[in-house]
Amino acid sequence: MSYARQMLGSYRSDLTLDVDAEVLAAVIEAAADCAQACGADTDADLSEPHLAEMVACIRLCLDCADICAATAAVLSRPASWHRRVVRPLVEACVAICQSCGDECEQHAPRHAHCRVCAEACRRCEKACGEFLTIMK
Amino acid sequence: MSYARQMLGSYRSDLTLDVDAEVLAAVIEAAADCAQACGADTDADLSEPHLAEMVACIRLCLDCADICAATAAVLSRPASWHRRVVRPLVEACVAICQSCGDECEQHAPRHAHCRVCAEACRRCEKACGEFLTIMK
Amino acid sequence: MSYARQMLGSYRSDLTLDVDAEVLAAVIEAAADCAQACGADTDADLSEPHLAEMVACIRLCLDCADICAATAAVLSRPASWHRRVVRPLVEACVAICQSCGDECEQHAPRHAHCRVCAEACRRCEKACGEFLTIMK
Amino acid sequence: MSYARQMLGSYRSDLTLDVDAEVLAAVIEAAADCAQACGADTDADLSEPHLAEMVACIRLCLDCADICAATAAVLSRPASWHRRVVRPLVEACVAICQSCGDECEQHAPRHAHCRVCAEACRRCEKACGEFLTIMK
Repeated sequence: MSYARQMLGSYRSDLTLDVDAEVLAAVIEAAADCAQACGADTDADLSEPHLAEMVACIRLCLDCADICAATAAVLSRPASWHRRVVRPLVEACVAICQSCGDECEQHAPRHAHCRVCAEACRRCEKACGEFLTIMK
Repeated sequence: MSYARQMLGSYRSDLTLDVDAEVLAAVIEAAADCAQACGADTDADLSEPHLAEMVACIRLCLDCADICAATAAVLSRPASWHRRVVRPLVEACVAICQSCGDECEQHAPRHAHCRVCAEACRRCEKACGEFLTIMK
Repeated sequence: MSYARQMLGSYRSDLTLDVDAEVLAAVIEAAADCAQACGADTDADLSEPHLAEMVACIRLCLDCADICAATAAVLSRPASWHRRVVRPLVEACVAICQSCGDECEQHAPRHAHCRVCAEACRRCEKACGEFLTIMK
Repeated sequence: MSYARQMLGSYRSDLTLDVDAEVLAAVIEAAADCAQACGADTDADLSEPHLAEMVACIRLCLDCADICAATAAVLSRPASWHRRVVRPLVEACVAICQSCGDECEQHAPRHAHCRVCAEACRRCEKACGEFLTIMK
């Protein structure tokens, strides 16, 4: 079991989480993993010989890494959320994961690192989408 | 002139920024400053004797620091924005700066550090608001 | 296989990593996981009734989260490391994981979240230590 | 007066900072500013036509942004430092600011954004150096 899941299971019992702990743990893990994959993909892209083709991918990965990291950090502290903060943040995360996943997918046939990064983006996009559905 | 403003003035001339550079520099600076102030206020809050009263403030400052830092980072790379990413991110930033500013303001009469942090939140909220107005 | 491990396996073959990919992937994952656990533990600590006892733990978790996140990010881009940068960064990571792990361990008997966080700190401390051994 | 300086002046009087507040505020501001400048320079570098020449600069800016941001965050919470954590962290910050400043300086004659970024790196390197001198 991931630390994220274990931590959510260890809160004092009088703390009421208004989202399912499994769904929350899934989005925290997916966002943290996606931040890592996008950071790594930036570096891998910069090692490719046809750099001009990779610029859009690098830029999207940089934004995706920053937004996923902030999302994972904020969602990891669920004791006292403000819905009007968390909702647009997770919406921004869905949007950048879509754009970054689309771009990485185009490079996936040639670059294995972009294929892996696209997977990470898709998983995060999906996990964030489920989270938004249950939190409304 | 701040580095943020200087950097925006140094881009190649064929790069078209679709927002006013002054407004953009102002929101980058305000968000970066607010991230710093909120981080510092967390620490100052934890030094206060009546800790239970400061818990909400600490929590909001932690979220505000993370979201402002991500906002400053993403806005600092304006060459190729995706409006559907930037808009909800800045909306999340406005929302957390409002909530964190409101909470800090309540503690301002007793704690000078909360007064300073409230100022930083208000300035960031205002700068983000202006940015959202011109980017639509 | 983690994204971190997959990404390291997907670099172009003419890129020479001067550390073992398994060891590197282990430290990236451990640092990213520890950053998440420490962020979550901050929030869990703030939910405890005896707050004054948790202040040291909260402070260490905040520093540990920031330093582990930076370590994971820098190590995730291994194509062109500067040894004189990476070494002190990972040393700082070892030091904070030791201190944070020690503090969390003291609270582990009463607080399950501190037990989980101590585990994450110990694993990161160990992974960073192995990394420092092989990189010299 | 910057928020960083104001926050340091607002701590409860019985809190003993073991470093001069002016020096500490200077390094916090310099590190936060350098993180912003390096993030912006990454984006500006990616807009240049001769991309292959900019790869080393982009990579150093990415590491410099992450390490400076972590340094600014940790130093912004000075109530309870651990010297064995802060010292190597600031040493890593000096090292990356030196390397990144050297690289940016080489591009400064052609790229104004690299000149600005080099200035930010030099200022942070100097501020960190002074901090290390007084903290020993």
